[in-house]
Amino acid sequence: MAIQKPSLPKGTRDFGAAEVQKRKYILNTIETVFKKYGFMPLETPTMENLSTLEGKYGDEGDKLLFRILNSGDAFKDIKEKNGEQKVSDTDFRISAISEKGLRYDLTVPFARYVVMNRNNITFPFKRYQMQPVWRADRPQKGRYREFWQCDADVVGSDSLLNELDLIQIYDEAFNQLGIGYELRMNNRKVLAGIAQVVKSIDVMSTIAVAIDKLDKIGEEGVRKELQEQGFSADELNTLFDIISIRGENEQILQQLKPKIKTTEEGLKGIEELELICQHLKTINASIRLKLDFSLARGLSYYTGCIFEVVATEGTLKSSIGGGGRYDNLTGIFGLPNVSGVGISFGLDRIYDVLDELKLFPPQLRASSTGVLFCHLDAATQQYCLPALKQLRDAGIAAEVYPDVVVKKDIGKIKGVQFDYASALGIPFTAFAGEQEMAQGVFQVKSLATGAQQVCTIEQLITLYQQQQ
Amino acid sequence: MAIQKPSLPKGTRDFGAAEVQKRKYILNTIETVFKKYGFMPLETPTMENLSTLEGKYGDEGDKLLFRILNSGDAFKDIKEKNGEQKVSDTDFRISAISEKGLRYDLTVPFARYVVMNRNNITFPFKRYQMQPVWRADRPQKGRYREFWQCDADVVGSDSLLNELDLIQIYDEAFNQLGIGYELRMNNRKVLAGIAQVVKSIDVMSTIAVAIDKLDKIGEEGVRKELQEQGFSADELNTLFDIISIRGENEQILQQLKPKIKTTEEGLKGIEELELICQHLKTINASIRLKLDFSLARGLSYYTGCIFEVVATEGTLKSSIGGGGRYDNLTGIFGLPNVSGVGISFGLDRIYDVLDELKLFPPQLRASSTGVLFCHLDAATQQYCLPALKQLRDAGIAAEVYPDVVVKKDIGKIKGVQFDYASALGIPFTAFAGEQEMAQGVFQVKSLATGAQQVCTIEQLITLYQQQQ
Repeated sequence: MAIQKPSLPKGTRDFGAAEVQKRKYILNTIETVFKKYGFMPLETPTMENLSTLEGKYGDEGDKLLFRILNSGDAFKDIKEKNGEQKVSDTDFRISAISEKGLRYDLTVPFARYVVMNRNNITFPFKRYQMQPVWRADRPQKGRYREFWQCDADVVGSDSLLNELDLIQIYDEAFNQLGIGYELRMNNRKVLAGIAQVVKSIDVMSTIAVAIDKLDKIGEEGVRKELQEQGFSADELNTLFDIISIRGENEQILQQLKPKIKTTEEGLKGIEELELICQHLKTINASIRLKLDFSLARGLSYYTGCIFEVVATEGTLKSSIGGGGRYDNLTGIFGLPNVSGVGISFGLDRIYDVLDELKLFPPQLRASSTGVLFCHLDAATQQYCLPALKQLRDAGIAAEVYPDVVVKKDIGKIKGVQFDYASALGIPFTAFAGEQEMAQGVFQVKSLATGAQQVCTIEQLITLYQQQQ
Repeated sequence: MAIQKPSLPKGTRDFGAAEVQKRKYILNTIETVFKKYGFMPLETPTMENLSTLEGKYGDEGDKLLFRILNSGDAFKDIKEKNGEQKVSDTDFRISAISEKGLRYDLTVPFARYVVMNRNNITFPFKRYQMQPVWRADRPQKGRYREFWQCDADVVGSDSLLNELDLIQIYDEAFNQLGIGYELRMNNRKVLAGIAQVVKSIDVMSTIAVAIDKLDKIGEEGVRKELQEQGFSADELNTLFDIISIRGENEQILQQLKPKIKTTEEGLKGIEELELICQHLKTINASIRLKLDFSLARGLSYYTGCIFEVVATEGTLKSSIGGGGRYDNLTGIFGLPNVSGVGISFGLDRIYDVLDELKLFPPQLRASSTGVLFCHLDAATQQYCLPALKQLRDAGIAAEVYPDVVVKKDIGKIKGVQFDYASALGIPFTAFAGEQEMAQGVFQVKSLATGAQQVCTIEQLITLYQQQQ
């Protein structure tokens, strides 16, 4: 076989030891909080039937699905059906050769799971799911074709206490990670009320899509876009009069109320937001929650509260989480009227924020090894083996440098071994030369301080445990 | 959109909370052992370029690769190139519409990683990797299209101490899991020596493939198969004379030695096996290691020791792990002469064994929740909220039943809530009616004993912590 220069598919990454440890630190932090709030794990397959995925993410989403070729001779069917046609005349359909796709998000597989297992699930069903998803998007900085989502959802409960829990989960997780954040909240019913007051309920999506871009194109940009879609100057003034309300959460709710008092749905939305603020007072939680009537979020399936979390420190200022309530997600799979509410953490963006701000705990190490045994030759290496076992039996991660350099060039032999320890950040080396072997001891050196001392294996165990 | 009855792709599975907890228990056990022996984590992407995967697993493996359609219009190229041809005359090639495939094992991506990062890796490089792999195999009991492998490999070291570590890793992991096992070891060099003595070095693979089936088709079957491939009765007698040697490890090495003494490679293999047995004596390890000269394992890239672990209890008796030394895995990617040795644990088979033998720890629960707050109405629910926060602040996973049944049918309201606790195995419920609210207490009930007592929230925290 010819020698190939290997490469990775565009938009995908390997994660070496240091990166895996950092990613696991984030995942473990989030998972611990999920569990504390009563969420249970779920894992779904990487592949889903295309019938499950297609039509759930809009036309744009369908284009971004990774599709898997049917196994066997994928072209057999096409040839049988279209054999007499000219290739250029043939309307090949991908569906003829592909029936499965890669998971695009965690919400649709969750909805599928709920419907398939509805008779065995205890409702309300609180699940979390932390798995990779794939999108055939154009890769760019911070956007990958394989990335992880961490979702928590509750289905089968209308209570706003679920929203309260999800808000606290965000707060607790980001506090533990040390990330400065702002949690923005709005309510789709309020957006509906605003649309009705501005023009009519039918323009809610149009308004939502436009004001979602406020951060990027500014008020003038949004005004221009909506003007082009037939909004009058008066209508736009009414809109901006409402969405530019600023202040403390309770104040701005009071200011909004009279402006949309003619819309029943709008008032219901305000009532929901008020109740959540009241719950937060009841539990005396200080959470950086900010009502923002310009928050819209693209996904059209939200029907109640919507959330977005933005990192407030560092250069990235990116969205690191979002979610909301949806009233009929499982309907498409034949189970109507199941209300759900959920949030998502974006692992990769959180990683980038922690990395930029140097917020990873300094004790995270690529290697877990606590002690490396170093030696001069086969005999001294052999002498290390029972000691190595004793350390491991005491629960200490340890290694012996496996290879013996035959030539007795002590400096070089030791050099290679100590370089290994230092490259891996192993905190202690235990060296055995002929003298140490004769005395039944090791020359122990601390990587951090450079201090050396002669230790029996029992003393080494004690020394190590004291430093932990 | 029409309502669809959702389903899962063939050979794939959802894992609900109880299964995830059990799978994580296995993964965590193995991972902890990997780390204790100095292995570091690596994660590679789900998708690899087909140029990385193809030709690495034999013709059969290439057929079992899951291939991913190129994004965009996958058929555009075909139409442009073959537009004027008749469909039936066209030799469509999958390579024209697919350049990526799903990870088929963890070894080839590891080799690719080592080659791509050779300048940044400290050798010897000890990595572990625990990720799913995909094969378009015919699904059957215990065989899935998506399944997990847990691999540990060392590259860049010729030392047999690596084999010694891997043997101990198997022993420690299976002991911790409580699985009775037998670890079989052989050496490809011994197999080469046997082939040379029986007939010639060229028939090593033929012999290996045939004796790999000994368990299934018995000695007669193997004799028949080899006879058909041109082996004489004498040659087969020589072969079975050797591979049927039984006894203590050191005895059978002594018996084998004179039989293959004319082959240098065979003697080298014996020497390696002897050295490993000697190391095990040095560290005084009692490991169920059994030399078995009939162990061959299919993969042709092994060049030194080979391992296989079989569960010895239960009805499954299946292979739950395997591995060996390979001397030139990275050669295909342009980095020759890098020796490696590794082992693999099969998560799904280990799960099946633990499940059949009921060896999962009884304390594994689907839900982590310790206390569920139950209530009568909105007011008593509100009363629970600060208490709930206090529990969580104390690090106890807790929930309040989120919904309020408006109708004051106490039995029914309580029933739904207690059923939820009992379905999820939540060990304590804390109920608040009007009386409890008036007195600032909760009616606390233990799921295990049924015992009830009145507690303040502080008393509940103490009670919970004492029971852990």
